[in-house]
Amino acid sequence: MARLYDHIRRSAATAPDNDSVSDTGRTETFSDGVLAIAITLLVLDLHVPLRGTLGDESLADALGHQWPQYAAYVTSFLVIGIIWVNHHTLFRLIRYVDRMLLFINLLLLLFVAAIPFTTSLLAEYLTAGGSAARTAALVYSVVMLAMSFAFGSLFIYVVRHTALVEDNVDPAALRTSTRRFTALGIVLYGATILVALVSAPACLVLHLAIALYYCFEQIRTRAE
Amino acid sequence: MARLYDHIRRSAATAPDNDSVSDTGRTETFSDGVLAIAITLLVLDLHVPLRGTLGDESLADALGHQWPQYAAYVTSFLVIGIIWVNHHTLFRLIRYVDRMLLFINLLLLLFVAAIPFTTSLLAEYLTAGGSAARTAALVYSVVMLAMSFAFGSLFIYVVRHTALVEDNVDPAALRTSTRRFTALGIVLYGATILVALVSAPACLVLHLAIALYYCFEQIRTRAE
Amino acid sequence: MARLYDHIRRSAATAPDNDSVSDTGRTETFSDGVLAIAITLLVLDLHVPLRGTLGDESLADALGHQWPQYAAYVTSFLVIGIIWVNHHTLFRLIRYVDRMLLFINLLLLLFVAAIPFTTSLLAEYLTAGGSAARTAALVYSVVMLAMSFAFGSLFIYVVRHTALVEDNVDPAALRTSTRRFTALGIVLYGATILVALVSAPACLVLHLAIALYYCFEQIRTRAE
Amino acid sequence: MARLYDHIRRSAATAPDNDSVSDTGRTETFSDGVLAIAITLLVLDLHVPLRGTLGDESLADALGHQWPQYAAYVTSFLVIGIIWVNHHTLFRLIRYVDRMLLFINLLLLLFVAAIPFTTSLLAEYLTAGGSAARTAALVYSVVMLAMSFAFGSLFIYVVRHTALVEDNVDPAALRTSTRRFTALGIVLYGATILVALVSAPACLVLHLAIALYYCFEQIRTRAE
Repeated sequence: MARLYDHIRRSAATAPDNDSVSDTGRTETFSDGVLAIAITLLVLDLHVPLRGTLGDESLADALGHQWPQYAAYVTSFLVIGIIWVNHHTLFRLIRYVDRMLLFINLLLLLFVAAIPFTTSLLAEYLTAGGSAARTAALVYSVVMLAMSFAFGSLFIYVVRHTALVEDNVDPAALRTSTRRFTALGIVLYGATILVALVSAPACLVLHLAIALYYCFEQIRTRAE
Repeated sequence: MARLYDHIRRSAATAPDNDSVSDTGRTETFSDGVLAIAITLLVLDLHVPLRGTLGDESLADALGHQWPQYAAYVTSFLVIGIIWVNHHTLFRLIRYVDRMLLFINLLLLLFVAAIPFTTSLLAEYLTAGGSAARTAALVYSVVMLAMSFAFGSLFIYVVRHTALVEDNVDPAALRTSTRRFTALGIVLYGATILVALVSAPACLVLHLAIALYYCFEQIRTRAE
Repeated sequence: MARLYDHIRRSAATAPDNDSVSDTGRTETFSDGVLAIAITLLVLDLHVPLRGTLGDESLADALGHQWPQYAAYVTSFLVIGIIWVNHHTLFRLIRYVDRMLLFINLLLLLFVAAIPFTTSLLAEYLTAGGSAARTAALVYSVVMLAMSFAFGSLFIYVVRHTALVEDNVDPAALRTSTRRFTALGIVLYGATILVALVSAPACLVLHLAIALYYCFEQIRTRAE
Repeated sequence: MARLYDHIRRSAATAPDNDSVSDTGRTETFSDGVLAIAITLLVLDLHVPLRGTLGDESLADALGHQWPQYAAYVTSFLVIGIIWVNHHTLFRLIRYVDRMLLFINLLLLLFVAAIPFTTSLLAEYLTAGGSAARTAALVYSVVMLAMSFAFGSLFIYVVRHTALVEDNVDPAALRTSTRRFTALGIVLYGATILVALVSAPACLVLHLAIALYYCFEQIRTRAE
């Protein structure tokens, strides 16, 4: 197997001569599609207050009361946006995908595609208080943790199959970097589950903070 | 005609000099788009229980009662995901598309785009029991069988027009592999129709099992 | 201007050295996106009959009564599918796009993106009879005619700016072919408007027939 | 850092040898996806009047009363269309993206993805009169202004990091052009906020006029 990969890497100019290995083009297009749709579907959670339902309230007040929707929209938009940035970063390092990697990627997309639902759920119950708010925050956090595990699996799979990665990537630097990246993600999203059990709004704030943190944290692929 | 294709294959570096034959790029982009949207629209079937409608029930219970929605979501996500993986595998073997192939591909996409509807239908009636549940499972299974026929037609068309395929594909291996692949798909999805007449939940379980099976089954393009 | 284009054509290997002219890649990606989304959004028009609303009716009967939705879904899917096939055929002939062409293309997409709405409208009123059915069929047909005009404008613009087209295209053959193609489209969709004034179902049948006809009619770019 | 970029520019044929810099391909695909979805989701705001709700009104009248929806659809379609055209123009000038640019781009997409919501809001309240109409127009205009700021930031970032741009771009011409482009956008969208405080319909007309103006206004990248 390793020799096959070696052969593939040497004949980089031609399509890989193997049933289960292909270049990354369509996988990126499909993933970009799912990520772009999931991020844009978030807007369907923003509901326009209908004209007949305002009563004595002004539209400005009605919109103001929807702040949990906006907060959830911005947070989830940022989370999916960062997933895309890191997905993009990871796939820049990959030269070929094999069938297993496609399925791990599919698992990641399964959880990402569920985010508009969990976002909508959290927005609906964020200010409900009591067990309902905690349940909503818990579901939101569990899906994020599952996404984090799927992303980690993708990293680990790539690190363990260095024949799939580009020549100019230092395997040791990649391994160290992705290990920290994955462990951190699981710890942080694990923490959101604990916070969800206490307070839904605090949980959303933590998710936003994690997203902002990940804007700066990045994967390194070369020895420093 | 065959000579024309031969000519095209020899001048692989340039765009094919023929009105009805083109390279596969945009067909893949468009198909990736439809598949990505169909797979992501599945999430619209997951309904957030509204705050005013919970009554005495806790949110956790209300979400728990929606298990048919989650089961249908995961199953259909996996099915469309695998359709994408196999579509990707097939188009890796194809060098050019002609007009007929575009329309067979469109037929496939017609059934795939209907999956969010049949999924929603099955989720709504999965636990309804009686003839309604069987009807929903039947509609779900019939659309899958129709999709399977369309995919089979795509395979058969490609196998019969070997001038469209890449040079490094062994036509005999491809023929044998796609024949088994197609026959199996039709037999398996035909079986789901029979099971749908008995039990909707059993039918969904069978669909999930078929999807898991297809994670491992794959098209071979070289003599073993 | 013409000389500028000539210069561009000669330096085909490099990006065109002009502010308002670019290659067709992103225009195709964006158009593929809009077309793929519009074609997939059609499924949102298929409504699942809710469990509580069936009454004495069986689910099978309730689904059967929705035949206008399925008929409209298949027809519009085919229409958008063929728009994509012809868009793909046209852009294969184009080497560069300029700003004007981008806006004509945008106009085409404006009408295509409206098709899920007009399809939903026609499905809702197809069997309503009277003026409501005729109005719905009229709106559906007018948007198709407008789309046809926009597509015709795209063809005419390309034919008149031959410097944008690929070298291997015969301008005279392209002109003759697109002229017939455009005139025919306008005549046929004009006819649907007349039929809409008489009968909505007949109008839908005519739209389906036109779509099937266009599966076979195609643009020619070489002298025969 | 500057030297690193220089090195990258010289070795244009190979992938950039730096963790935080990559080519523009996937960023364009992802952005095209979000823009294509946002522009197509606008159609979900066009509501089909249901059969049971017409009363004495004819369908033609009911559709006629929806003119704010059509006006808002066309305006927002044109605005997002032009954002796409300008995004396309900008990215043609860019050779590499870095992490910061990805996040500014994400901020732009955050506001663009919100446009279907603000469009829906404006369509619902356009003819409501009083403070509700003004609030809706204000929200619409503020999101457009925010989008304009994000787009301006993208321009400014690119202008300040000329190592990211293509060789054949004149930095001085680009700087002058984008400065005018950005300032104008902010002034014009700032003006819509003032008009929103007076009249919602006038505000929508102004947005349409700005969009039409931007069809002709364009970025220049070469000395004239």
